[in-house]
Amino acid sequence: MRSHTEYLVFNTSERTQIINITPKLAEIVAKAGIQEGLMLVNPMHITASVYVNDAEPGLYQDILAKLEELAPYGKPYKHHQTGEDNGDAHLKRQLLGQQVTLAITKGQLDFGPWEQVHYAEFDGRRKKRVLVKILGE
Amino acid sequence: MRSHTEYLVFNTSERTQIINITPKLAEIVAKAGIQEGLMLVNPMHITASVYVNDAEPGLYQDILAKLEELAPYGKPYKHHQTGEDNGDAHLKRQLLGQQVTLAITKGQLDFGPWEQVHYAEFDGRRKKRVLVKILGE
Amino acid sequence: MRSHTEYLVFNTSERTQIINITPKLAEIVAKAGIQEGLMLVNPMHITASVYVNDAEPGLYQDILAKLEELAPYGKPYKHHQTGEDNGDAHLKRQLLGQQVTLAITKGQLDFGPWEQVHYAEFDGRRKKRVLVKILGE
Repeated sequence: MRSHTEYLVFNTSERTQIINITPKLAEIVAKAGIQEGLMLVNPMHITASVYVNDAEPGLYQDILAKLEELAPYGKPYKHHQTGEDNGDAHLKRQLLGQQVTLAITKGQLDFGPWEQVHYAEFDGRRKKRVLVKILGE
Repeated sequence: MRSHTEYLVFNTSERTQIINITPKLAEIVAKAGIQEGLMLVNPMHITASVYVNDAEPGLYQDILAKLEELAPYGKPYKHHQTGEDNGDAHLKRQLLGQQVTLAITKGQLDFGPWEQVHYAEFDGRRKKRVLVKILGE
Repeated sequence: MRSHTEYLVFNTSERTQIINITPKLAEIVAKAGIQEGLMLVNPMHITASVYVNDAEPGLYQDILAKLEELAPYGKPYKHHQTGEDNGDAHLKRQLLGQQVTLAITKGQLDFGPWEQVHYAEFDGRRKKRVLVKILGE
């Protein structure tokens, strides 16, 4: 059994932003040299998500609009009594999905035609990390 | 370490449909012969979910009704500017949950009394695949 | 390759309750002695979630309030035709997220500064189990 661990760093220009991280993950798979395995991709901050969906700009807008509708920014969340203003971001992360596990088969990400992995930031403009961990052989 | 990879194929008769795939997964576990491991079950298309919940027809209706309420079909999603009409399906997948990882213990799916794995299709009537990948020993 | 399996048991005093289980998971990691691996944390009952977010009491209230808004208790869910009254709990579990997979690096949970793992109970006051399974070396 082998393992491989990396940390990606993001610092988005917008408070809320979606970034396609599939090319970075494919590079890590190539570098790790693991042929058959599972890869966890997990945001290390709790106001961001990693999710798999279509890499289509209109869909990015639909996703952000839906999350804004379901958990709007600027509401009197109890979490704000700590001095924070990002209660919406903590909730959006949960609704979109926290993390993904991916399959590696024959040395490559084992994806359907439209599967692309995204980092969704809900409280950006600061440095944040995403953990990538592969287990396999 | 050993690994085992399979692809299930679904072609639902309805646009939106829930299918209990637990028996198929139990067959794969038996065939793989892996005693202790983790099994990723991941839809390879981004308008479907794999989730674990009760195999109860009333609950299936509740789940589909709730998702229809939260992300209705036929709204002017930005994604539709590409010619698609399935913006709702992309959103429903995220709200329900994209994928699951299951435990295999003593050669069997290690489940509580009511845990059943389901494929939820939100844009069906076409061939779609679900990846099943086991890592273990 | 090595594996380690444990079952945590919860019996909450409230119907709906959030419990920080990070210390229990850290103990299991220490006991397992696995240095590099993946850990699945999965509720074995389908009216509960395991999720990662901030361990902040105000946020717990925000999460429970948002889920109550999106999937209220006491509505005429179809699932209730079986005699159950917990249709809301099945839906809340899906919206919050069913389960998480965690990374173990150098013998410890590989977490960002605020990542804490929680058990969220939506139909409590009874004994329920959470499966913890580690694969690694």
